[in-house]
Formats: sequence, C-alpha cells, structure tokens
Amino acid sequence: MPTVAQRVDISDVDDPRVDDFRDLSRADRRPDRPGGRGLVIAEGVVVVERLIASRYPVRALFGVQRRIEELAEAAAGLNVPAYVADADVMARVVGFHLNRGVLAVADRAPVVDPADLVQRSQRLAVLEGIGDHENLGALFRNAAALGVDGVLLSAGCSDPLYRRSVRVSMGHVLRVPFAHLESWPEDLKLLRDEGVRIAALTPRAEATPLRDAGLDEGRVAVLLGSEGPGLTDEAIEAADVAVRIPMAEGVDSLNVATAGAVTFHALSGI
Amino acid sequence: MPTVAQRVDISDVDDPRVDDFRDLSRADRRPDRPGGRGLVIAEGVVVVERLIASRYPVRALFGVQRRIEELAEAAAGLNVPAYVADADVMARVVGFHLNRGVLAVADRAPVVDPADLVQRSQRLAVLEGIGDHENLGALFRNAAALGVDGVLLSAGCSDPLYRRSVRVSMGHVLRVPFAHLESWPEDLKLLRDEGVRIAALTPRAEATPLRDAGLDEGRVAVLLGSEGPGLTDEAIEAADVAVRIPMAEGVDSLNVATAGAVTFHALSGI
Repeated sequence: MPTVAQRVDISDVDDPRVDDFRDLSRADRRPDRPGGRGLVIAEGVVVVERLIASRYPVRALFGVQRRIEELAEAAAGLNVPAYVADADVMARVVGFHLNRGVLAVADRAPVVDPADLVQRSQRLAVLEGIGDHENLGALFRNAAALGVDGVLLSAGCSDPLYRRSVRVSMGHVLRVPFAHLESWPEDLKLLRDEGVRIAALTPRAEATPLRDAGLDEGRVAVLLGSEGPGLTDEAIEAADVAVRIPMAEGVDSLNVATAGAVTFHALSGI
Repeated sequence: MPTVAQRVDISDVDDPRVDDFRDLSRADRRPDRPGGRGLVIAEGVVVVERLIASRYPVRALFGVQRRIEELAEAAAGLNVPAYVADADVMARVVGFHLNRGVLAVADRAPVVDPADLVQRSQRLAVLEGIGDHENLGALFRNAAALGVDGVLLSAGCSDPLYRRSVRVSMGHVLRVPFAHLESWPEDLKLLRDEGVRIAALTPRAEATPLRDAGLDEGRVAVLLGSEGPGLTDEAIEAADVAVRIPMAEGVDSLNVATAGAVTFHALSGI
C-alpha cells in the first residue's frame, strides 16, 4: 500500500477505491460491516489529526490537495493511501459539499471493558439514555476539556462513534475512552466496588446544590440523563448523592452537555 | 380585531393575513420594516408562551388547531388574531414543515439603555463579537438559567432577536434584558462607574483559574469573546481580572456558550 506521501489522485467519481467515503449521509449504517455499523469517520484537519493519534486503525484519507498537505506531518509514517480529488469530485462522492475539505476513515476498535475503565479513572461521566448525537458529542468534548477520564454508557445511549457525534465532539470521542454497561443500573456496582462516589445530576429541589456537594475531592462519577426526561428514578436511587445546579425560576433546564460541563468543572482536578 | 378565542381559519396559502409568517427562512430581513430587520418570531408552544409574557407586542399567532388550543390559557386576553391552518397549508406559507406546529410574531420593542441595565443588574454577561446565532441563543438560555440579570452586546455581535437565536435560547432572549454598547471597549466604563467588577474569560495560561477568582461575591460582569479568536487584547486589558477555566492539555477550548455557563454558575447568586 502507498504511504500517505505517495498520494493517489482520484478523478473518477465512481472509483471504487473511495467507496468508504461514498454517500456519507448514510455512512453510519453499513450492512456489509461487523454489527452493521459504519466506519469511524473524521471530518476536517483537526479531527483527522485526532483520529490519526487515536487507537482506531486508519484505513485511508480523502481530501483536496491543500488539506492533505496540511496533514503531512500528522500522517507521516501512516501506511495508508491518501486520496486526492478536487472539491467537485469529492462532493459528488461524499454526497454533499464538504466545507472542511478532508476526511479520514478508520476501523472500529475492540470495545473497552467497563471494569478496567473504572479502575483507571479518577473522574467519570455515566450517561443514561442520551440518544441525541449532538448532545453525546458535546458531552465528550466537555469531558475531554474538563478532565473527565472516561465515559460509561447505558443501553439507551446512541453510538458515540456516529459521524455527527465525532464531529460535534471535535474528535474528542476518539480520545476519551468509553465503555458500555450491560445491566442498568445494576452495573453501577462497578463504581461502588471501586470506591467511586456516584453523583446523580437532577433538577429535583431536594437535591444538594452542586457547589455544596464536595465533588472536588476523591474519585467521582457523574450520572447524566437525557434532556427531556432526565435520569430515571432507579438511576437517582442507585447514586450516593443527588446533586442539582441551582437555576432561576421559570427555566426548565440547561442543555445536558452544558449541565455536564458545569458539573465536570466542579469536580475537575485540573 | 378578534381576540385569540375568535380564531381565523386560513385555507388559502396566499391569504395576505398570514404574510408576516411567509417564507420564514428569509424572515430576518424585512426591507419594509424599520431598520430592515424582521419581526420577532417565536416557534413552538413554550417559546410562544414566553413571547406572550415578554415586553414585545404580539401581532398574531399562527398554528395548527391542537397547538393553538394548548395556548388558550397563555393567550387569554391577548387581543390579536390566532390564524389556524392545517399542517400542509402552514408548511406552504412558512416555506418548510414546522415540527412545533405554532408560531407567533411580535414587533420589536424600544432598545434598552445600557446604563439603566447596568444599574439594575447584579450579574451581567458582556459579549464581544459573538456572530453565531446559535451560540448567542445558547448564551441567553444559560444566562437565564444561571441567574444572569442582563446582557451587554458589543458592535460585533449578531442580533439576539434573529429567529434562530430566539429558538436556540428557548425564548429566553425575550426574557433576559439586553442592551448595545456603542463604543468598545470604552463603554465598559459604564460598569466601572457602577462598581461592577469586570472579569474577562480567556484561555491565557497566566489568567486566574475560575474557582480562585472569587466571582461569587459582589456585582460581576463576565466578558466573553467569540469561539475562534476569543476576546481581543483591548477587552482583556479593560477588565479588572482575566479568568480561565482550567482545561486538559490538547483541548483547544469549550464552546463559548458552555464556557459562559461554567462561569455564570461560578458567580451565581441563586
């Protein structure tokens, strides 16, 4: 296979070598792939750089010449093809005009064992029923920025590796390790067994105000539920403490990723 | 004029009575209106309720029957027409299918005097160059939730009353008062003259970590710049203190509305 320096020019929209990049708006479903799920797709120079630095095995790059050149350093030694096309050919392969001018695809990597992830984490986010890909991506961006070491996902969450989540996370979903919990909320015992304090974020009036909850010490996991219904009663009861962000009267709630950021900052060890 | 209880059925897509709701994707520019700017447009039951409760004079409602009925209580006594159409007619007037099923339009209201706003506020957000309508809307939502009393906008900011800002703010842009600063950053003296402490949010390493800045006491204004360039040097120098949210290595920044939320929580008097 050519190294990235040995670029491959693509002028034919139907060239099968760029099939992994074809019709991106449907790329999250790939019946031909294990589990029917799509490849990991990174868009834009910064996110492609994060993909290259991640544990996901890059298969290929595809971009306009200028963007591929910007990636020369990050992609040095990466033994995959770099397909180069003009913006028009790219748009016709991908299915829409791509502002960011460069893409990379990678295979999925083996899933992370949740017990292992808990063991090596000081601060965790635990997500229940976060179905919205943008909120999920934004939560990973905020987790990465504010020093959260890992994310645990309950069954009701979307796949963090969906294209839109990767993009909204600015690629941080590729850096912050995550694992799936099978039994919910029983698997929260993985945290209790390790002595991690579990704080459930809820708007309930009887919950402890965030700034009084003492989350800035020790190992802490923050439970976050989806924006509409919030955490289930079972999840709140399984936590060690229920915590609320004090809010003005007449305001329903913050966006879940924003509430996550406010809470992550409160426990940040950075 | 009919009260809202006396609904007006609309079956003709070209009916001039719903012209204020026509072709909404272009509704932010209205050459026929003062300043060329569009009416205030609220989408969805919750945001329409907030518009009705606001200082903006409602001109009319337009929705499918079910949504208009949901608004009966909020609109009681509101002396404007409520146009009712089926979803198809509505979509053809508005220009796209409207998930939320109801709209309201209002006139703009007289601008607020910035000195007055400063005088009656304990906590303020001051925005420099926030051009993105979604970020602007999200900042107002977060300001409302976390007890910020008012927002000051420098000349480089977008209009908070643009349709998308209103929607993303969940209507809180209609509740949180805002005013425009003419001279930037000279007009920050309005804050200094009132004894309001000015804190500039910046990623600069030499800035004080947010949790050590003591912003939870007294009157405070938080300066926020746009997501890419951040605050200008002039703005940071005009502040009393430069504050940073500690962030993990390799992470550029938080979204500006998210950074705002983290900061507003730190100064919240709620």
